Amino acid sequence: MRVVVPFAAEQPKTRLADVFTPAERRELARVMLDDVLRALREAGHTPEVLTTATIDVNVPTIVDDRPLNAAVNAVLADGSPVAVVMADLPLATPDAFARLFASDADVVLAPGRGGGTNAFVTRHSSFRVDYHGASYRDHRERAREVGASVATIDSHRLATDVDESTDLVEVLLHGTGETRRWLEERGVRLDTSGDGRVGIRRDDTTAV
Amino acid sequence: MRVVVPFAAEQPKTRLADVFTPAERRELARVMLDDVLRALREAGHTPEVLTTATIDVNVPTIVDDRPLNAAVNAVLADGSPVAVVMADLPLATPDAFARLFASDADVVLAPGRGGGTNAFVTRHSSFRVDYHGASYRDHRERAREVGASVATIDSHRLATDVDESTDLVEVLLHGTGETRRWLEERGVRLDTSGDGRVGIRRDDTTAV
Repeated sequence: MRVVVPFAAEQPKTRLADVFTPAERRELARVMLDDVLRALREAGHTPEVLTTATIDVNVPTIVDDRPLNAAVNAVLADGSPVAVVMADLPLATPDAFARLFASDADVVLAPGRGGGTNAFVTRHSSFRVDYHGASYRDHRERAREVGASVATIDSHRLATDVDESTDLVEVLLHGTGETRRWLEERGVRLDTSGDGRVGIRRDDTTAV
Repeated sequence: MRVVVPFAAEQPKTRLADVFTPAERRELARVMLDDVLRALREAGHTPEVLTTATIDVNVPTIVDDRPLNAAVNAVLADGSPVAVVMADLPLATPDAFARLFASDADVVLAPGRGGGTNAFVTRHSSFRVDYHGASYRDHRERAREVGASVATIDSHRLATDVDESTDLVEVLLHGTGETRRWLEERGVRLDTSGDGRVGIRRDDTTAV
């Protein structure tokens, strides 16, 4: 099965502007992509990157500068079984991906926290995506509309995309790849001083 | 195996004060408890509630008004295998609990988002809890210190405890029990108008 990882090469991760410089955010996006590609390869797959601009990466790339929905739907239009995995899932492990691929439903969804669709497999030629809004809910409905059976993967690792600073807590706690090391090298630490959930802080000495 | 569900009968869910009245927060805490107890029973268990004050519930209760750590550690002091499951996991399903109980490690942890420990099984007589701070990380360390093998359950359902309004998004999207219905009856809706993750809004007409 084709496994496609969309990647936004420009202006990545703007909601992390309170923690990282633009150059750092580009680095972070890239190290997360590399973690996702590595976990997919270790799970036995041969991922391709669907990128908005040419990047230097050691896997096949498809360059498509259209918005995400159009670029992914162009891949799906082929009608063959395909998996689409977001590039900002640094907690993903080969085991978590194995669960995604183990289900034999026509459409297998891995919801992201906050209503997104962090990864999916489709074996139905008519399934298409729309990542706007509560896309997990919408994708379930679209799958049913085209008569596809649907399964959902219950995974915290696949549910954790990195968009906001609180997401970095999960990487520091559960990360097994380079993204965790990258954060630690830049002085990003757990902050357990609050009353509620754990947050992050950044040591100034290592700030750029 | 004993399955114990701690429940704070007073002043529950203060971080939801922007959405619900104190009376509603007590109701919400109770409907979530009932969902957790139901899922545990459907998974074949006989849960007990470890409560800070007498409550009217259809399962055995242990009343202990000490803070959470002391009350749970008093249960663990018995030395027998026991599971401790938080009462604010309205996404928990029998399948998710089945995965928690299927591992045969000495200590099996289900991390909560933000560093907590939402559920665990211990088969090691020396394991004790401290829920303060990044308890998932601390509990891993404590388990290793006492020589216990450790496993972690990768579940978005078990990782989702309900403390803040963004957590309600997950209940509306993925809930299968009474808590979702309770929220919907009180006019809590998904808000997909923002740019980032989906949020919630509450219809004023149904506010108390």
